[in-house]
Amino acid sequence: MSVRTPDPFNSPDEPESGIPAQGPTWLTDIELEQIRHRLPILYVEAVPVHVDGFGRVVDVGLLLRGTALGEITRTIVSGRVMYGETLRDALFRHLEKDLGPMAFPQLPPSPVPFTVAEYFPLPGLSQFTDDRQHAVSLAYVVPVSGTIEARQDALEITWMTPAEAASDDVCAELEGGRGALLRAALASVGALP
Amino acid sequence: MSVRTPDPFNSPDEPESGIPAQGPTWLTDIELEQIRHRLPILYVEAVPVHVDGFGRVVDVGLLLRGTALGEITRTIVSGRVMYGETLRDALFRHLEKDLGPMAFPQLPPSPVPFTVAEYFPLPGLSQFTDDRQHAVSLAYVVPVSGTIEARQDALEITWMTPAEAASDDVCAELEGGRGALLRAALASVGALP
Amino acid sequence: MSVRTPDPFNSPDEPESGIPAQGPTWLTDIELEQIRHRLPILYVEAVPVHVDGFGRVVDVGLLLRGTALGEITRTIVSGRVMYGETLRDALFRHLEKDLGPMAFPQLPPSPVPFTVAEYFPLPGLSQFTDDRQHAVSLAYVVPVSGTIEARQDALEITWMTPAEAASDDVCAELEGGRGALLRAALASVGALP
Amino acid sequence: MSVRTPDPFNSPDEPESGIPAQGPTWLTDIELEQIRHRLPILYVEAVPVHVDGFGRVVDVGLLLRGTALGEITRTIVSGRVMYGETLRDALFRHLEKDLGPMAFPQLPPSPVPFTVAEYFPLPGLSQFTDDRQHAVSLAYVVPVSGTIEARQDALEITWMTPAEAASDDVCAELEGGRGALLRAALASVGALP
Repeated sequence: MSVRTPDPFNSPDEPESGIPAQGPTWLTDIELEQIRHRLPILYVEAVPVHVDGFGRVVDVGLLLRGTALGEITRTIVSGRVMYGETLRDALFRHLEKDLGPMAFPQLPPSPVPFTVAEYFPLPGLSQFTDDRQHAVSLAYVVPVSGTIEARQDALEITWMTPAEAASDDVCAELEGGRGALLRAALASVGALP
Repeated sequence: MSVRTPDPFNSPDEPESGIPAQGPTWLTDIELEQIRHRLPILYVEAVPVHVDGFGRVVDVGLLLRGTALGEITRTIVSGRVMYGETLRDALFRHLEKDLGPMAFPQLPPSPVPFTVAEYFPLPGLSQFTDDRQHAVSLAYVVPVSGTIEARQDALEITWMTPAEAASDDVCAELEGGRGALLRAALASVGALP
Repeated sequence: MSVRTPDPFNSPDEPESGIPAQGPTWLTDIELEQIRHRLPILYVEAVPVHVDGFGRVVDVGLLLRGTALGEITRTIVSGRVMYGETLRDALFRHLEKDLGPMAFPQLPPSPVPFTVAEYFPLPGLSQFTDDRQHAVSLAYVVPVSGTIEARQDALEITWMTPAEAASDDVCAELEGGRGALLRAALASVGALP
Repeated sequence: MSVRTPDPFNSPDEPESGIPAQGPTWLTDIELEQIRHRLPILYVEAVPVHVDGFGRVVDVGLLLRGTALGEITRTIVSGRVMYGETLRDALFRHLEKDLGPMAFPQLPPSPVPFTVAEYFPLPGLSQFTDDRQHAVSLAYVVPVSGTIEARQDALEITWMTPAEAASDDVCAELEGGRGALLRAALASVGALP
């Protein structure tokens, strides 16, 4: 059966089942599962935004998804960095995966993230949790100027103003504590109320 | 006689002689001269760059100018913030002034500069000097994607790789100690050798 | 009469009445008043924090003040940069002015602020307002490790957790829209819920 | 024989031979070797500095080490982040490992590094190389106020001014391309000439 719960953190990062692993740098699901309990896993995350002609953020894009349990959750662009892959390549790959090939993201010239988010399996060590693993994520605000195409597994993007995005209601819908990440993204561009 | 040395820091910021001052927010040359010895003056500066599709800086643009004394000096985009003007508006105005209307600068979403440069009339307090005034400058790296048109007073732009721009020779040609500013700009985008 | 309302933005920046102006770099109240409508005025601001042994922010200090109208307002350390003064000197001077000589502030090694706040007399251009002037403020998070002594004009400091400080109630009590500044400060240190 | 060359990148990160692995979160040398070719490994790095009372960087500390081949190389504090460990804990652990227990490092309140360095086994993808692995390092400037004690394997610390540290000679002695990292550290604190 292929009713696979969409991986809430990082779905098509690894080759789907049925696709042979692509050499030593790709991990099978089992290998990845084992490593996830041995090492922190490096992620990149991106908050897509629309900017005006002066670079001001006018809208924020949040991904909307129905889980296998029928819940609606929100998230941002997120995924693992592969062996041998630069951060920029990983960021671009995940933006394309989640927003489609016509989103035209403008990756920032600086490699410095607006924040570093630490996800732990158990709450308490940080604001962020991920029950699958210890992940450390470099998070960026990325302007997009093109057309968004939701990818196949029912992911949709909702655009809202910074004030709407920063609201308690919206932030509570973000998984893994990413409401705090979204607010930090808005603060970094001077758009948090 | 109107053979006016092009203001090495900030030329057409203030209304040119002959143009009446535009209300209380514009300063006459005399007023500005007086205030410059009473208060730090706020500036914005921009290092124009070309980026590739992944946001990596591939080229840096330096402005080239012949002074009235026949010297060739290099500089970056630089100018004063006016009363009532936002930093973004000031940055955009000075980019357009120095690079022309078709440069298509992409102002950064974040208002945080890569560095804050402090210019003092006398050397020793900081790396930067400006014999006319105490100026504090918020400096940004700004990707441009369009066509540069040198403005009338013989300002030309030279594009070079980050390694060339960071060289001792080029940095020594930048006025007011801005070689250090250029290197800090390159470091902020991970492009300083 | 000298019952002077403590200047809500920047009180003892200028020489107190009775002290003669210290040469051309100090401004009389009248001069400052005039210039404030001609140029953006450069400020530094600081959010005092307590950190633990690992640099984590555990408490935030907000200044409490009773206004002449009997209102209680909150604010942060804030003041003007003088002519010829470095940003670090100005920051240190205002920290000492508001927190006393035994606060032992640890100024950050980097001159880059966590945000740049733009204050305009009229609302709408930015999140921040100051009816006296157009001010541009470089804002820093500054750990203090010593003892705070409220200065004479009834300024008191209240320490609270990041979550308390970020609450709507507390942020609404900050003057000039500085609730958004406080939240941005917390976001910059990974402490905004 | 156990004359083990001090691991130039990360030595006492893993339990030394003879000490039993401490449960599933610690990796044997063989396991780590395998994983290093499958995933990017997360590191933290620190440039120790001395600051004056205003936070200005006055000296930079570089670690000096004789390799098994009799070469002298320089490096900075550097080490792996373990499973379940926060970035701050890892940073503190490596600072203590390399500088001794009395260095009194002041970890920055912000989790945002001054740069992110990407180390690849082969040159060309970035400025940094590490022939053992693909590592991604979050790099910080860390003031220390105490006494440095070189750890057992002949590591010594040399203090020099920012200008000396940024020189071509010194930067060429840093391993893995970290001369560029050192310059970026200096630029981030406004101390790169």
